[in-house]
Amino acid sequence: MKKIAILGSTGSIGQQALDVIRALPDELEVLALTGNKNLELLERQIKEFQPKMFYSSVKPDIGYGGEFLSVEEIASHPEADLVIVATAGKAGLSPTLAALQAGKTVALANKEVLVMAGEIIVREASLHRAQILPIDSEHSAIWQCLRGEENKPQRLFLTASGGPFYHYSQSQLAEVTPEQALQHPVWKMGRKVTIDSATLMNKGLEIIEAHWLFSFPFDSIEILMHHQSVVHSMVEFMDGSLKAQLSWPDMRLPIQYALSYPRRWLNPELPRLDWNKISSLNFEPVDYNKFPCLKLAMDAGKSGGTYPAVLCAADEVVVELFLNHRINFTDIAKIVQKTLEQHRNTPQPSLEEILAADAWAREYATGFSPGHCEELERRSNPGIER
Amino acid sequence: MKKIAILGSTGSIGQQALDVIRALPDELEVLALTGNKNLELLERQIKEFQPKMFYSSVKPDIGYGGEFLSVEEIASHPEADLVIVATAGKAGLSPTLAALQAGKTVALANKEVLVMAGEIIVREASLHRAQILPIDSEHSAIWQCLRGEENKPQRLFLTASGGPFYHYSQSQLAEVTPEQALQHPVWKMGRKVTIDSATLMNKGLEIIEAHWLFSFPFDSIEILMHHQSVVHSMVEFMDGSLKAQLSWPDMRLPIQYALSYPRRWLNPELPRLDWNKISSLNFEPVDYNKFPCLKLAMDAGKSGGTYPAVLCAADEVVVELFLNHRINFTDIAKIVQKTLEQHRNTPQPSLEEILAADAWAREYATGFSPGHCEELERRSNPGIER
Repeated sequence: MKKIAILGSTGSIGQQALDVIRALPDELEVLALTGNKNLELLERQIKEFQPKMFYSSVKPDIGYGGEFLSVEEIASHPEADLVIVATAGKAGLSPTLAALQAGKTVALANKEVLVMAGEIIVREASLHRAQILPIDSEHSAIWQCLRGEENKPQRLFLTASGGPFYHYSQSQLAEVTPEQALQHPVWKMGRKVTIDSATLMNKGLEIIEAHWLFSFPFDSIEILMHHQSVVHSMVEFMDGSLKAQLSWPDMRLPIQYALSYPRRWLNPELPRLDWNKISSLNFEPVDYNKFPCLKLAMDAGKSGGTYPAVLCAADEVVVELFLNHRINFTDIAKIVQKTLEQHRNTPQPSLEEILAADAWAREYATGFSPGHCEELERRSNPGIER
Repeated sequence: MKKIAILGSTGSIGQQALDVIRALPDELEVLALTGNKNLELLERQIKEFQPKMFYSSVKPDIGYGGEFLSVEEIASHPEADLVIVATAGKAGLSPTLAALQAGKTVALANKEVLVMAGEIIVREASLHRAQILPIDSEHSAIWQCLRGEENKPQRLFLTASGGPFYHYSQSQLAEVTPEQALQHPVWKMGRKVTIDSATLMNKGLEIIEAHWLFSFPFDSIEILMHHQSVVHSMVEFMDGSLKAQLSWPDMRLPIQYALSYPRRWLNPELPRLDWNKISSLNFEPVDYNKFPCLKLAMDAGKSGGTYPAVLCAADEVVVELFLNHRINFTDIAKIVQKTLEQHRNTPQPSLEEILAADAWAREYATGFSPGHCEELERRSNPGIER
């Protein structure tokens, strides 16, 4: 029995992790659950799984014997065999570090942790011989494809579904509403990552994540558009052979793989690919010009330092502005770009410097009103009368 | 430096193995070459690679210091690090056994060896702790996909290019000439295997080969039509995750992989997949009715005993009859079927019993004249006036 602590159990990944644990009662046991504001769901989860310990930002008044601990105490608890970090944004940073410093195996769904502080995270993991297992479907695919290989690959191909608007024109993109953007054609995910999918910022963050997870150079990580999301990513070896990992798009599979590793487990609830229904798998090169967030993320990753933290923070703020109908869909990239341009980089930053850059970027990006965006637009297209 | 003995160096696989060795002079060295009737080519190869030992069915009169040995002596020679069995038909059987009994690593391209005598071959390999490495692109793909995995897969998907006539009607198939059948749209291969590709007999033999190589049940091996031959095969695990191996279709890659294993080597001469040119990978279910050889092979494999040897022998004879314009393309399956029907099976046969079944089947199948085929046709379609 593996004892699992789930940080962020009320989010989309957290709930799906509980689905996996529910389906595999002989293999997995919930040791701890933590939630943020969705107290009602957390209480239901606590009732069902009776975890030994829990945390939520508001302490719930529920009559059961579980211990109320901080997220960091839970992440580093001696009884935890594996810690799922399924929190959102920078909230995962401190508990991930706590878990790694306690030598825990961390199944990481919160990509901002590696994007913001990849160097520190990887160093701490190595120092404490702690393993980081990816839960993102793309990184799980790469991890599966690298299994048992002695040589480093030559190229990584991250596939991208492209979200719902991949074939929209620029003017159509400007009109996209939050309601439309939240309808992802393939994946069932949280709100933030769904918007990031539509802007391709998510794919950009995944490039940075892949860079740190597999200590792989940015220039050898490529994006391949694949709207069906059946091929989750590919790896090319030096002899010209490629391996791809495929499955029905369902996050429960990469979650389960991280939990079962190095074994695989039968779970009748996981869907299977049906080759009678797949007549073709389609691919196309990515259009960097149309989705500037992808390029912004790649550049921030390559520049390193505090740039990736600024990218994450600005994006988090700006996605929220978009979801609240304050800015247009196409403003997202513009404000993130402006924030990055205004940032003074700190190379090889400490955790404090990363958090300071994060705070600065949040404040800077929050200041953008719709008027500011129009001003930015005019400046970037000086020849166009509006 | 790995010292390589190539049995059948003048055939298609043998020549491509020499291409690989030529490109990797720091890794590989030719220890021995053996040929059959193409003495001219063998002499050229001997001149270039100066092998320590050689064999050919006619002893060549060439003034060089190499030792003339039997194929079995070469296959089991103490200096050989790896033996490539690239002979055709049953010719590979005895040297493969000699190599395995000497504990050699055998890179096997001659699929008839495993089809005819899979049980004996696998037993001898295990007894002498000798490794069999597949060279067939499909089996190399499966082997690559299984690398590092702890659990047995749940299903194997062998992809099939379908050869040049996959979309022909039955009446079109009857008119196919040997010249047309020898034009494979994707792979550059020997004459026998090219015809076997067009009848899908080759895919049937590969099912039997996969059964023995991966000790995998027949019912869990599936065929998926994939005309482009980019995905060379796939493996499905119990959790619903699949791995696929992809590359530009070029036999030098699986040959090199067997030679480099467990490493991979950079070989600038091996082609790379270009994702700017691949917009889709297409798949379709196989039509068993249209290509009866596939079903015949599967049934022979499942029945076991001497049936697979009879299948191989009859097919070898009948392909030769077709290449000599003695029978129609569609007669191939009919004569093989008739031969299998007439055979009295020996379960768990000895090598002698396998060779006896082989000899019987060759004699039986050779007796078929065009008149016989028409007679078979009439019997299988009693309602059709001719």
